[in-house]
Amino acid sequence: MKDIEIAQQAELWPINKVAQDAGIPLEKIEPYGHFKAKIDLPLNVKRVPKRSGKLILVTAVSPTPAGEGKSTITIGLGDALKAAGKKTMIALREPSMGPVMGAKGGATGGGFAQVLPMEDINLHFTGDMHALTSANNTLAALIDNHIYQGNELNIDPRRVVWKRALDINDRALRNIVIGLGGTTSGIVRQDGFDITVASELMAVLCLATDIEDLKERIAKILVGYTYDGQAVTVGDLQVQGAITTILKDALKPNLVQTLEHTPTLVHGGPFANIAHGCNSVLATKTALELADYTVTEAGFGSDLGAEKFLDIKTPVLGKTPDTIVIVATVRALKMNGGLSKNELNEENIAALKAGYSNLARHIHSMQRYGVPVVVAINRFVTDTDQELDCLQELCRTQGVVAQLANVWEQGGAGAQKLAQAVIASCDEKSEFTPLYSQKMTLAEKITTIVTQIYGGSDVVYAPKARKQLKEFAKHGWDQLPVCMAKTQYSFSDDPKLLGAPQGFSIHVREFVPKLGAGFIVALTGNVLTMPGLPAKPAADQINIDYLGKISGLF
Amino acid sequence: MKDIEIAQQAELWPINKVAQDAGIPLEKIEPYGHFKAKIDLPLNVKRVPKRSGKLILVTAVSPTPAGEGKSTITIGLGDALKAAGKKTMIALREPSMGPVMGAKGGATGGGFAQVLPMEDINLHFTGDMHALTSANNTLAALIDNHIYQGNELNIDPRRVVWKRALDINDRALRNIVIGLGGTTSGIVRQDGFDITVASELMAVLCLATDIEDLKERIAKILVGYTYDGQAVTVGDLQVQGAITTILKDALKPNLVQTLEHTPTLVHGGPFANIAHGCNSVLATKTALELADYTVTEAGFGSDLGAEKFLDIKTPVLGKTPDTIVIVATVRALKMNGGLSKNELNEENIAALKAGYSNLARHIHSMQRYGVPVVVAINRFVTDTDQELDCLQELCRTQGVVAQLANVWEQGGAGAQKLAQAVIASCDEKSEFTPLYSQKMTLAEKITTIVTQIYGGSDVVYAPKARKQLKEFAKHGWDQLPVCMAKTQYSFSDDPKLLGAPQGFSIHVREFVPKLGAGFIVALTGNVLTMPGLPAKPAADQINIDYLGKISGLF
Repeated sequence: MKDIEIAQQAELWPINKVAQDAGIPLEKIEPYGHFKAKIDLPLNVKRVPKRSGKLILVTAVSPTPAGEGKSTITIGLGDALKAAGKKTMIALREPSMGPVMGAKGGATGGGFAQVLPMEDINLHFTGDMHALTSANNTLAALIDNHIYQGNELNIDPRRVVWKRALDINDRALRNIVIGLGGTTSGIVRQDGFDITVASELMAVLCLATDIEDLKERIAKILVGYTYDGQAVTVGDLQVQGAITTILKDALKPNLVQTLEHTPTLVHGGPFANIAHGCNSVLATKTALELADYTVTEAGFGSDLGAEKFLDIKTPVLGKTPDTIVIVATVRALKMNGGLSKNELNEENIAALKAGYSNLARHIHSMQRYGVPVVVAINRFVTDTDQELDCLQELCRTQGVVAQLANVWEQGGAGAQKLAQAVIASCDEKSEFTPLYSQKMTLAEKITTIVTQIYGGSDVVYAPKARKQLKEFAKHGWDQLPVCMAKTQYSFSDDPKLLGAPQGFSIHVREFVPKLGAGFIVALTGNVLTMPGLPAKPAADQINIDYLGKISGLF
Repeated sequence: MKDIEIAQQAELWPINKVAQDAGIPLEKIEPYGHFKAKIDLPLNVKRVPKRSGKLILVTAVSPTPAGEGKSTITIGLGDALKAAGKKTMIALREPSMGPVMGAKGGATGGGFAQVLPMEDINLHFTGDMHALTSANNTLAALIDNHIYQGNELNIDPRRVVWKRALDINDRALRNIVIGLGGTTSGIVRQDGFDITVASELMAVLCLATDIEDLKERIAKILVGYTYDGQAVTVGDLQVQGAITTILKDALKPNLVQTLEHTPTLVHGGPFANIAHGCNSVLATKTALELADYTVTEAGFGSDLGAEKFLDIKTPVLGKTPDTIVIVATVRALKMNGGLSKNELNEENIAALKAGYSNLARHIHSMQRYGVPVVVAINRFVTDTDQELDCLQELCRTQGVVAQLANVWEQGGAGAQKLAQAVIASCDEKSEFTPLYSQKMTLAEKITTIVTQIYGGSDVVYAPKARKQLKEFAKHGWDQLPVCMAKTQYSFSDDPKLLGAPQGFSIHVREFVPKLGAGFIVALTGNVLTMPGLPAKPAADQINIDYLGKISGLF
């Protein structure tokens, strides 16, 4: 049965029932249809300090293009914790429509571990992405209009760094020239579109702690430089009020449910390869306030999403994870062990053992933070018992509990043992140790990430990046954390270098200051902030019948 | 008191109560927050033919840049009809965010004749504009991807006619070059963005009668031509299923309420100067099914919105208006009589009489269709009694009832007499006569519109337009109706030619085939399909406080 068929057969609870079950006062619920709602924060108007529940961060090994089922495990684990009698909430990112129309598939789990209504969540949901696109491009239009209408701030059109954005995979918009057509149609300059999830506004929305903080962060956003090299921010343009207004509703976390009615907040959706890869601070905080166990995920492998969760999101959230779950699959490890995509259906213990080096490094990197680690083995039908035993044994040897999970087929029932392992792990002693101090220079921070997390040996800066390091230090921006933009397929910046490569260099070609988000993006290798569509895009298969029933979504 | 303050002090009914009041079954209501809903059509699942209520079309004289209060009168008239005990619904277009951030102000009425919640409706509302933007640009990305991935359909990149779109006033995007950056970033070609309301998808959404019809229309959309001059449609690309899926929810009419709780459908929002300027067929049909009196409006003066309502929308709607209300103001007529903006506060009977020629022509044009006409004089505080008497007398001389309305100050109570005049007028005999036959050629249709509605003498075609006329005849597209894109300020294509000019030519510079919408757009004069922002955009004043309260919206 396809994911969409399982989803369409499900009997959902009315969203008010989900809210009541989660302990959310109904007057805080703004329904969007019958099965989605926004939560009008703060829940706790008097801001009485409240005991926080346990936080479980789900991350993964280096993924294959098919994905390792990280969202699926997150959802199934949440369902299993709920079934075990624990008050549980799940906090996920919201999907981008670009990949939905492209290749990746949805981001709402799969099989019997899904969040619903999956069609809505994967398409427009409650409009957050659209609000971000709109805010991003309104700001871009205001910048170009400022230059066109006299340029009081003396902005150098060649040095506008604020790009336009669309929630679409559209390679043709990566590099464009705008303002053609004569004196009434703007100023000619080079520009480009990023995918909306890579917009700084997405990061700002995910890190803002309330609407005032959102506005303050937006005011700090760097949009370009003057002809004499001074930074120009949104605050200088004095349009932070309008941009914040456009994001008013997008700031409110979205409530939905799993197939097993576990209350789930799906809010904020930066990719982990080109952005910081975590759901919103507000959603995670809300879940922590309401539930005893909050299960959240960070994008791609632990080198990307988890590192950024721990080094970028955690300081704002004010709460560190009580357990980190690393999702691994026999298939991904065999691929990391050297097999090609069409060799994965055969048992191959040697390849599994070779590929285990990848999981081993992810475990080691996460243990580095002082948080207990549990491995979740996402079971596939092609996995043999011998492979599964071997993988569990390898983990045991490294001193880590590894539990099988089969949530795709069984939902929460397929993660009972994993849930018990996680509950036990959350009671273990955890002493969070940050990876780096904010006082280190940008270069020092990057070296730390590369050597401690990626297992690389050094960092090579392109001339432009080297020049920027000096400039940024002058501006005082070198005290900010770093957000690495890197391929998800390898610890290195070469997507073909699988397993646990050693002795490699990371190549930083350019930095992008995100002063509102409060970090500096380092673009490594060939990573792109606007994806393209494949030769056979998913859009070709999507259809809708006269009753409005969608097919071909996944 | 500012509009937004009146709106924020209003006590709204929960949307379910509004729905019940309108006779909409609650299981058809999909709430978006507490005060907005989408209606899951069809209401009448068995499609039993139902007596249709009366249809009142509100249009206006040639407007001044400040607008003549057409939406305000539409809303106030609806409230007055309801207060008079008539089962009433209002059917309006939804605002575009571009002008909201730019100059125009909102599109939700004003004073005590408003639809609410005005902040939401003027910003993201229920996401329809965003869905259209998204569908428009997904299609654009799929076209460019098709060319990039081998171009099986042999599309000539120089002849792609499908443009990108944003719901933003952004002159810098009118003319752009895309696909720069080398072999991995697409094919270089010239392109441009229209404002979303000018997208053919907006017209298609507004004219579609159900989801099947929507999909069929989308399949017919022309996207470009092959190297050997063959038309290429969305159907050739086979992505109509995906594009329709993206528009699934946008197709459902949106229910809100006025300050006086009159149920109002706000759905579809093409501009009348660059598109067909009417709200959706589905919303109007729904209102006609439910109410005894449906009040709807078409954009700008009767030469634009009303002509298109009567010649483009009416054939699809299958119902012609029972009365046409023409909104006039003393101020607009004085301006049409030769006064400048800052001379309008002084009494000036001579200028009013001179400017009446404009109203006279609008009346005459509308009477041409065989539908009874009523003039609504939207009263301003600066109007003197002598001016108002004079204007009513001029209308009486032309054989038309003219009623004062003061809904801005008094809401529905300010339109009691107007409502009675409209009720009486709806009972008059009405024999609708279409302006032109679809069998006429495009040039014949345009000549008919220009001479019969605009009062011009002839049409001048630019070489490109002349060439297109021949091409389109070959393709068999000359049997479609024409959608004139023309300045709203004059009957002519010169915005400075006010009053009732004569002997002028209309200059058609280019045609744009909208085969899904089922009409051919004729671009006249300098009219632009992407507006720009003014030197002091409204965005500069918009703000939001820590409680989420918006200010400066209007």
